[in-house]
Amino acid sequence: MGGREPLLLRCPLILPCSGCEVVRDVVVYIEDGVIEYVGSELKNGYRRGVVIECPKRSIAIPCLYNAHTHTGMLLFRGSYDDEDLESWSRKISVLEKRLQPWMVYHASRLAALEALSSSTCGLVDTYLYPRESMKALRDVGVRALVGRLITGIDDLQEARRAFDDAKAIRGEGGGLIGAVIDVREAALLPPETLKVIAEQALELGVPLQIHVSQTRREVYVAKKRHGRFPIELLESIGALTPLTILVNTGWVASWELNLVSRKGARLAFCPTTTMKLATGGHFPLKEVLEAGINVGLGTGSPAASNSLNMLREMRVMILLQRFSYWDTRIGARDALKIATEGSARLMGVRAGAIEEGRAADIAVVSLKNPWFTPLTANNIISHIVYNATPGDVEYTIVNGRPVYAKNSEHIQRLLEESREKLEEAIEALGGAVS
Amino acid sequence: MGGREPLLLRCPLILPCSGCEVVRDVVVYIEDGVIEYVGSELKNGYRRGVVIECPKRSIAIPCLYNAHTHTGMLLFRGSYDDEDLESWSRKISVLEKRLQPWMVYHASRLAALEALSSSTCGLVDTYLYPRESMKALRDVGVRALVGRLITGIDDLQEARRAFDDAKAIRGEGGGLIGAVIDVREAALLPPETLKVIAEQALELGVPLQIHVSQTRREVYVAKKRHGRFPIELLESIGALTPLTILVNTGWVASWELNLVSRKGARLAFCPTTTMKLATGGHFPLKEVLEAGINVGLGTGSPAASNSLNMLREMRVMILLQRFSYWDTRIGARDALKIATEGSARLMGVRAGAIEEGRAADIAVVSLKNPWFTPLTANNIISHIVYNATPGDVEYTIVNGRPVYAKNSEHIQRLLEESREKLEEAIEALGGAVS
Repeated sequence: MGGREPLLLRCPLILPCSGCEVVRDVVVYIEDGVIEYVGSELKNGYRRGVVIECPKRSIAIPCLYNAHTHTGMLLFRGSYDDEDLESWSRKISVLEKRLQPWMVYHASRLAALEALSSSTCGLVDTYLYPRESMKALRDVGVRALVGRLITGIDDLQEARRAFDDAKAIRGEGGGLIGAVIDVREAALLPPETLKVIAEQALELGVPLQIHVSQTRREVYVAKKRHGRFPIELLESIGALTPLTILVNTGWVASWELNLVSRKGARLAFCPTTTMKLATGGHFPLKEVLEAGINVGLGTGSPAASNSLNMLREMRVMILLQRFSYWDTRIGARDALKIATEGSARLMGVRAGAIEEGRAADIAVVSLKNPWFTPLTANNIISHIVYNATPGDVEYTIVNGRPVYAKNSEHIQRLLEESREKLEEAIEALGGAVS
Repeated sequence: MGGREPLLLRCPLILPCSGCEVVRDVVVYIEDGVIEYVGSELKNGYRRGVVIECPKRSIAIPCLYNAHTHTGMLLFRGSYDDEDLESWSRKISVLEKRLQPWMVYHASRLAALEALSSSTCGLVDTYLYPRESMKALRDVGVRALVGRLITGIDDLQEARRAFDDAKAIRGEGGGLIGAVIDVREAALLPPETLKVIAEQALELGVPLQIHVSQTRREVYVAKKRHGRFPIELLESIGALTPLTILVNTGWVASWELNLVSRKGARLAFCPTTTMKLATGGHFPLKEVLEAGINVGLGTGSPAASNSLNMLREMRVMILLQRFSYWDTRIGARDALKIATEGSARLMGVRAGAIEEGRAADIAVVSLKNPWFTPLTANNIISHIVYNATPGDVEYTIVNGRPVYAKNSEHIQRLLEESREKLEEAIEALGGAVS
């Protein structure tokens, strides 16, 4: 696990980007977290450092990024799995009152390890005790935007805390971690306070996530209370800016999409979460892509989607989009593009491709398992998107450091420790909660 | 790998059935393929045989069954992934003209191994060269109903061949393999010949699978040509019997469901396939369950769904049902019940539970990976259904024989051989086909 040493990666196959062709026998040379060289043979002039020889029948691909999660909620994975969004949130919030910082630390740490095991180099992560999450993610070595999830903003106290967290995270996050702020159910909150939050976020230059238009009810309430659709409402109070990330907008109208596009706001979509919590609606991915809106893919909370597996999320995204549109226009390359370039851009990381000058975020995926057969140059992307599992991931390299290696003792030790701590936490939270 | 020796399984955790609670420290004793004893400690009187000690933090669960697949189509996995049902079928059928028996043998063998790796003990498998598939499945040691997929029945020649295959498979399949017949796009075929096939199937006592009401077009054509909805049409010609299995009926009307129920016919549902091929529609699982109809879960062809992974299919089933109904009533226990008891009953196997007197079809799943954390007695089923991957499966025991063990050299050898053969086949079929 080389700190600032250079890294040399030699792989039998490489997929340089989601729209690229597969190339054979490639050498990737990385210095100071940046890809310096990608080619068939290494010229002189490179410094000796860490060398990774990819296994036979494996491929290096650009890393995935999880555009939306609440890693601390990993504690509640498997609890209340049969509730819909509203009653699920209500029941979880009872447990959240008993949360302690160390619980969130270990939940976030395990979530980061789980993310790495599915080729994921970074996450946008908001929840309670964000400074604990930040420490956990920093300790593991993933990229992240971390911040507080604001659940009620009537008195602005929580919002103030969120901004304090954002400042602290900026200071202590190190090179890979930035700050973010997240607001739950925007349309159900007082627009005046939302307006203040948006202004302050803009002033501080902190990305502002807003869960909006997730349910029919939210749209109905916004229209009834304010005479506007939820995203129209956000626009009217100045909360739609290039720093805004709208989350799980399943009930969005076409004219709202135009506003998002015009204001340069971003979208994050978590298909498993919306399906499992039965919020209905339809995230109009084709129109979003046509409008040139920056869209990222996320798992959502591991309590809602049960997983941090972004490989699986790509597949679910395609299936859901095909089912909703009754056509097959969204395919494997789209999913990979959104999970790599789309989510990376949303996070502000110059990655998403294995290309000179980009951040060195790379995953090495073994193609040995039966589900990758038959393998041809033309079906590799399809196989990865439809079939790859965390068990197929050999290495995940973040910023030039191999922070995850399958079967590494270091990773196993961290996992075991966090597992024990989380099971202690579950006891402390009252044991079984399902 | 014990032939007819008794088998003793000792596990730290066991889930006896989908509706059961998890039990700790259980011994399972198996003789002649039947579960003889399940309990906390083994009494005297058992014969010495194979002993399997389940790993720490693992659980024995009833096996899953894949109610619908075409294993030979594994050859075309990753080909034409962006086509809809109609054009996909058309393009695949061009490749099928060049198929050779050895290609189907190896595709089916690899498919069986892949199925076993996801806790699956049996499959309903129809395609071209069914006798080759039968041999492959028999060689691997899984249960199956195997038969010919009839694609055009204008002259009844293919149907005649299907019945010849059925007789041969019955004779040579051995104890674990039975015969089946499958008809593609029932409503688009001449009812007269379909009637003859149904009569002969009934006479022979062979289960008759019918792909029906998969697309809106099929419903439209049936109504226009025959004045009836597709399943009404089947009923009117006597093709709806307890031996009938209707596949992927996504465009079914409520009165047709009543016919299915009244006639004792069965249903097989492949959520990934219908989503990926964008057939639209809605498989009304809640109404199906309420009507007491026997329903099984399947992956469909590995060229359509890209996978033989039944663990994944359970999860996709829940997500799709929740999305379609806008409610969360279908949950992990339902999915497990359908994939175990439902599919087993559809196949005519007395399994689906780890219970004395049942067929000894059992999978052992490790719960060590991070996606099973936190683990409590109450969330194990949820964790298995939402998160288990093939890499988590330690053993799959079919009829009292551990035919699959993770990392076993025997399995690895078979996989490698079939992989090489399939890549040869792809070359022979004209190389890249994507």
